[in-house]
Amino acid sequence: MTAVDFSHFVDELATLSGQAILPFFRTSLMAEDKSLGRDFDPVTEADRAGEAAMRQLIKRTFPDHGLEGEEFGSENEEAEYVWVLDPIDGTKAFISGLPLWGTLIGLKRNDVPVYGMMHQPFTQERFFGDGGSAGYRGPTGARALKTRSCPSLAEATISTTSPRMFTGAAREAYERVERETRLARYGCDCYAYCMVAAGHLDLVVETELKPCDIVALVPIIEGAGGVVTSWNGGPVTRGGSVVAAGDARVHEAALRLLNG
Amino acid sequence: MTAVDFSHFVDELATLSGQAILPFFRTSLMAEDKSLGRDFDPVTEADRAGEAAMRQLIKRTFPDHGLEGEEFGSENEEAEYVWVLDPIDGTKAFISGLPLWGTLIGLKRNDVPVYGMMHQPFTQERFFGDGGSAGYRGPTGARALKTRSCPSLAEATISTTSPRMFTGAAREAYERVERETRLARYGCDCYAYCMVAAGHLDLVVETELKPCDIVALVPIIEGAGGVVTSWNGGPVTRGGSVVAAGDARVHEAALRLLNG
Repeated sequence: MTAVDFSHFVDELATLSGQAILPFFRTSLMAEDKSLGRDFDPVTEADRAGEAAMRQLIKRTFPDHGLEGEEFGSENEEAEYVWVLDPIDGTKAFISGLPLWGTLIGLKRNDVPVYGMMHQPFTQERFFGDGGSAGYRGPTGARALKTRSCPSLAEATISTTSPRMFTGAAREAYERVERETRLARYGCDCYAYCMVAAGHLDLVVETELKPCDIVALVPIIEGAGGVVTSWNGGPVTRGGSVVAAGDARVHEAALRLLNG
Repeated sequence: MTAVDFSHFVDELATLSGQAILPFFRTSLMAEDKSLGRDFDPVTEADRAGEAAMRQLIKRTFPDHGLEGEEFGSENEEAEYVWVLDPIDGTKAFISGLPLWGTLIGLKRNDVPVYGMMHQPFTQERFFGDGGSAGYRGPTGARALKTRSCPSLAEATISTTSPRMFTGAAREAYERVERETRLARYGCDCYAYCMVAAGHLDLVVETELKPCDIVALVPIIEGAGGVVTSWNGGPVTRGGSVVAAGDARVHEAALRLLNG
């Protein structure tokens, strides 16, 4: 089975999870819960509903495949194909009503990310890639994703979850990079990586990611011509620190500053 | 003429400006320009196209009205009715491909904001209000806007352009407030004020705003049940510092910390 075949299946997963999650976005349930003192958290409910919908379809369609999900843990992790799911990446944006969260659907083959999609069901945008190419479908149409050329940090726009997320030496390392860039954007989570793939941002620098935060994004960024590694230049499949850049020169410059 | 009559006209302005601006969003023109060294800036072009479209229709329809625009300056400012226009509020989000910018269309009568709209043409969302009520139309339907109850800063989500925007005493003042909140979101510009009106965020604290950054948002926030003043509790019609809150208790607590 080729990546092309999986792309249709991933579209189905995205449609299903979007239908499960979207009713919980921008509800007044959280405010109601607060005043009632009930143990109801819409983002957790949405997360669980989205992941359950995807797991069910994967298990029915590919009973031999493995699964790693944010909410329901891992199953059959030693399988040739393993799906890596994050129903809502960007929960802080989600609970704040901001359309910068997304559903991450990744597929690993023999532990290597081979296909990924970021689906934003509110804006109806899909970013997807297989490492060799990447594409976009949204309200203004469909197109190939291609990172932009950016020769140096001085011309780069950087993004990270929050400059306050970093602690100790990691904060100093991050600051060394941000200081050299021309513009910084915060709080975009998976959306930032997709903007790198689409050629609107140049660099994302983060730490302490879970595998499900990044596996789906690797084939999109690489398929669009970008580079994504850990801060020490290794693979990001196990999560941890991440540097994603649209232009290899910016990636190299960031790694240099992060490591001293 | 009542505010209800203006609402249809403002819808027309939003549609026209959106048509003028949207073709410049997420184009590769900026990258092309960089390499060619040409003097073409898509955000400036979009700003000018959007404002020109609105000014033309206002002048044709209401030749006696005044105008204050970000790009083309002021005309007939002493008129009873003055339109206050910001075609792209959130230019940094715009150039980064993020859908958190918006077109601000405000109307003052005898220097008091009486109607306002924030239009996000990419997500096709409209937030509008007349000070007495406020409403929303978007991809998931139409509804009234209503701020949420939030008894204290400890339960509040705050938003600001960037914690790094503040300097000197203003930075210390802002930090005193953010420290007491449970969550902070950055870089949302006009979108943050609309999320306060919609009951998803609780507080926005900013400084150095231009009148066109805030006039249109006042009737939306107040119409949804919120409070918006300068840091010293005065009107924001002239721009400057702004505190907008969904719940008066949070507004009061923020003012207290900002001023001591």
